[in-house]
Order: sequence, then structure tokens, then C-alpha cells
Amino acid sequence: MLSFDSIAEACARLKGRHVVTPLLEYEPLNEMSGGRVLFKAENLQKTGSFKFRGAFNKIASLDPAARRRGVVTYSSGNHAQGVAAAAKAFGVPATVVMPQDAPALKRKNTERLGATVVLYDRRTGDRKAIAEKIGAETGAVIVPPYDDEMIIAGQGTIGIELSRQLDEASIAADLLLCPVGGGGLIAGISTALRTLMPHMRIYCVEPAGFDDTRRSLEERRRVANAPDASSICDAIVTAMPGEVTFPINLANLAGGFAVGDGDVARAVDALFEIAKLVVEPGGAVGLAALLGRRLELDGRTAVVVLSGGNVDIAAFRSRFGVKSDMI
Amino acid sequence: MLSFDSIAEACARLKGRHVVTPLLEYEPLNEMSGGRVLFKAENLQKTGSFKFRGAFNKIASLDPAARRRGVVTYSSGNHAQGVAAAAKAFGVPATVVMPQDAPALKRKNTERLGATVVLYDRRTGDRKAIAEKIGAETGAVIVPPYDDEMIIAGQGTIGIELSRQLDEASIAADLLLCPVGGGGLIAGISTALRTLMPHMRIYCVEPAGFDDTRRSLEERRRVANAPDASSICDAIVTAMPGEVTFPINLANLAGGFAVGDGDVARAVDALFEIAKLVVEPGGAVGLAALLGRRLELDGRTAVVVLSGGNVDIAAFRSRFGVKSDMI
Repeated sequence: MLSFDSIAEACARLKGRHVVTPLLEYEPLNEMSGGRVLFKAENLQKTGSFKFRGAFNKIASLDPAARRRGVVTYSSGNHAQGVAAAAKAFGVPATVVMPQDAPALKRKNTERLGATVVLYDRRTGDRKAIAEKIGAETGAVIVPPYDDEMIIAGQGTIGIELSRQLDEASIAADLLLCPVGGGGLIAGISTALRTLMPHMRIYCVEPAGFDDTRRSLEERRRVANAPDASSICDAIVTAMPGEVTFPINLANLAGGFAVGDGDVARAVDALFEIAKLVVEPGGAVGLAALLGRRLELDGRTAVVVLSGGNVDIAAFRSRFGVKSDMI
Repeated sequence: MLSFDSIAEACARLKGRHVVTPLLEYEPLNEMSGGRVLFKAENLQKTGSFKFRGAFNKIASLDPAARRRGVVTYSSGNHAQGVAAAAKAFGVPATVVMPQDAPALKRKNTERLGATVVLYDRRTGDRKAIAEKIGAETGAVIVPPYDDEMIIAGQGTIGIELSRQLDEASIAADLLLCPVGGGGLIAGISTALRTLMPHMRIYCVEPAGFDDTRRSLEERRRVANAPDASSICDAIVTAMPGEVTFPINLANLAGGFAVGDGDVARAVDALFEIAKLVVEPGGAVGLAALLGRRLELDGRTAVVVLSGGNVDIAAFRSRFGVKSDMI
């Protein structure tokens, strides 16, 4: 199982290569949440999401000879951009297997970073199999989106950074809310914080219909989502918890919450209007849980991880198709 | 004339009361600008703009007996919110004289901060006279938007903060681009940097039709704008340079640039899509000057001050009425 030391090593590898994202607080959002809320703004990370951390740590830890053959991955977008930027930093080629219906901005940005994009049909194709075939043919190393200890350790650097920022500001946080897709981000953060801030309670937040981790924690075994669910949170709609991430999360998390599209759209708008931050739907689920009163802070202090900001401006302007009476 | 020491004193007053806003960099925006660009993100400041700094410094420096009688100001919005939040921090009443057509968000936020809003008609009323009448009747101290040394010193704290952030990151910046309305922000920043980073060239950026400071610098005397000009940059449309600010800016600035609405809208969109920051049109003119090639960086390093982010979400969604073929 992932150790704290692996995360500390990832911090050393990332030093000077990533953005130490700010921890931000807004009085009106405190009032709306009934407590104190600190936002860890990973939307301001390189490539617009936390994914750069894990990808960089994975590629940095490869044997140089293997690294030169390049990397290949599969991703709906944020991980793709993280891998592309990290590969570019090492000057090695990257190939990304991406669904045909991925947001245009994520595809455009991945290509702008020099990666080769291979499209597949989400209904008929198996992205992992396609990536493995490319890896077998070219010798490229697979950089999985979450089920990999080096990826998880990279995401966990947020936990070490956060702990230092809270200490410097003399803030004692009671709980943390984190978006969860495959579970790599929260597995890394919770492993770091279990050592550094053991009293903090850590909760996953997922879109309604994609709350596989919340339900799996309750059943203490991995369960899948119904195949017909839909959500505006494109970044975090995964079928079931990861094989590597779930045992870590089962050991570390206090539970989870599911949020609907209306509350997510409201959170995205509140972050725009009050926080002046662009956060994608999947990155805003933590605040959605607070605004939708999935939990009451009752004066407690929460850290909310804003995991990404890669939203199409046209989709934002049309409110992601969410009717305004739902917001 | 304003001294460096006044700004250092303002830093001491603000310590722990304001947001030390991050200095952010984005590879795609470097590429689009032809050099290196560091953004000082004052849109993430308390109340969503730099104005909190000056207002807090002014109110903090008042005699306690005078302060208890409260403060009064006149503002199209950002200064109003800054004064309201600073007055609230000291527990004293604030009255704000605001045009009837001020953006709804700015009025709403000013009232949410506990200030009393007095509306006037921009075509027929004299906002300064109305504020002075309220001051005479109630004993409230006037907190002017820019023509005041304590206000300018407060805004100048950005210069000291920026200098430290550049030093910590080992970055030597060649020039700075700053939005200018009345000129208080750039007067403060340039006074701080003339002492701390004397080789940095400092330029004002204004909306086309409101480039009174740029033209006044060329003519070495204060000249006014034509009364019929219009711009989407509501935060920085002033009639002419300030009496107190202009002599400072004449001594400190290297010149200025004027930018059109199309380039401003393009800069706002680029900051949304790439930087994940919400910046209002008037706060984005520095980047607009770079994207519109008003100046060529030619590999040089620029600091761009993003002065505020108080934009109506509905106005943003409708592109501020700017036709897309202009963007």
C-alpha cells in the first residue's frame, strides 16, 4: 500500500516544476456554507487540473531508457493534458486515447501540448485495450489515470502542500471534501493527511448516479454504477472504484456524498461570481455538497478541493444545458 | 508627493487582513504574447478587486474618533465594495453614492457588505457633491476613489508584494502593464517599484476613447476624454487623470496603450479558458494590449496586473454585447 514516503519523494520531484496552488477563502461563501471554507485551487495548476502532478511523478520515476520510448494513456481529458505536459517537460512523445465526444477544449489543449490523439467510440471501444496495443507496438509506457502508485503519490503532493499552507495560516481544518472519479486524487491526499493531520475527516463527493465510491465504502467492496446514468461532471464519471485506489480509500475515508447537476451548476456559478475562479462541473462538486446541504458545517472548517477548471466556454455560457429552475 | 515609506506603512496595516494574491504564469499565454507573462491576480483580492487595499489603509489611518462617525464614498462599484468591506472590518458605517446603471453584481455585493447605497443619475447628478453633502450632514469622512495619498499608498502595497514574489521566484521582469482609470493603482505600484525595481518600465493601459492618461503623459498636462466615448470596461472609464495621481504618474510611467473592446473581450475569454480566472473587462486590458499586439514583448518578461473580477455572470454569458466577429 502507498506510503507517506512515496508522496514526500513525489514532492521533491515536482519542486519548481508545478504550481503551488493557493489556498483561498471567501467570506460570502463561508456565510452560504454555514462554516469556514478553504479552497485548494487546483484549477490553477498547470494544464488546468491536478492531473499534472501524478503524470509528472510517474514519468519522472521511469528508467531513462524506458522513458525515451514515450508514454501512452487513455483519458476523457484532464489526465490527457497532464500526461501531455509532463511528457513535453521530459521531451518524450505522448499518445492519448480519447473518446470522440470529449470536450473540444480538452482535445485542443492536449494536441497543443504536442501529444498525438487517437479517438475511439465510447460505446464500442475499449480504451485501455487500445492503449495497451499501442504500448506493445511502440514500447511506450502506459500512464494509467489512477490505478498506479506513482500516479497516486503525485496527486498526494496536494496533501503535503495543503498541510503546510494550513499550518502557515494557523488554521485547524475539521474535514476535507474532494471530487472522486477513479479515486486517485483522494487516495493520495488522504494518505498524506492521515500522517500529517490525522484528525481531519476526509469525504469523497461524486455526481448522483456515479456515487460508486460512496456506495462501495458503505458495502466495503467495489460496486459499479448503473450504465445509463448521466451527469454534467464529465471529468469524474467512472464505472467503478479503482483496484489500487479503493483499498486505500476504504482505509482512509470517513464516507461520501452524491450531488445533483442543479447543485453543481449553482456551485460553478458561485465560484465564478464570488471566487472569480473558473471551475469545471466535476471540480466543483465539493462546494455543491455544501450549497446543497448534503452536509451541515455547523461552524466547522472545511477544505474543498477544486480539482480542475477545463470547461468549454461555450458550455459554460449555455449553463451546461442545466435548466435555470434547477439552479 | 507620495513616499515609499507610506506604502511600507500600508503593508504593515494590511498584514493579515487582505489576500496576498498569487503571481501566476501560463505557458499558452506566454506563447500567445511572444514573451513571458506573470499575472498579479488582484481579482482574487477581498471583494474581487485591488480596491480593498486602499480603502482599508485609508480607514485604518483615520483618527479613531473621526472613524466612528463613518465613511462615505462615490464609486461605480469596485471601490464601493472595497470601502464597504474595510468599513465593516472596523465596525463603522459606510455610505456609497453609486450610479443607477452600475452593474447589478457590484451593487448587490456592496449592500451585502452592510453599506448604505444612495443612487444618482450619471447624466444629471454630481456624485462627489452628493457625497460631500452627506459628509457635511453626518460627519462621515470621504474616502475618495483615487485622489488621496492614503488610498494610493494602499494600492501601492501590490508593488512591494510583487517585488518580493518576483525575487522569491528569481524572475527579472522588464515591464509592467496596469489598468488605469483615475490612476491610483498605478501611482501606488509605480512608486513602490521605482524604489525596489528601478529598471522596470511601467505602462498604463486604458480603453480606446478613455486613454486620457496615455495622452496626458504625452502632452505632460491633464487632458480629458471626449464625453461621447463608450467602452465595456466599466471599472476604468474616468473623465480625466486625477489631480493627485497625475504628477506621480508623469514622474514614474514610461507611457501607455489604448485597447479596443474586441481585444478586451478576447483577453477576458483567454483568461477564462487558459488561466481559469474570472477577470472583468477593465481588469483584463493589460493582456488585451499583448494579444492585440499594441506592444511586442520580443522575449521580454512582463507583469500584467489583473485589477478585478467583478463581472455580471449574465453579461459574461452574453459576451458584454461584443459581436463575436470582433473577438
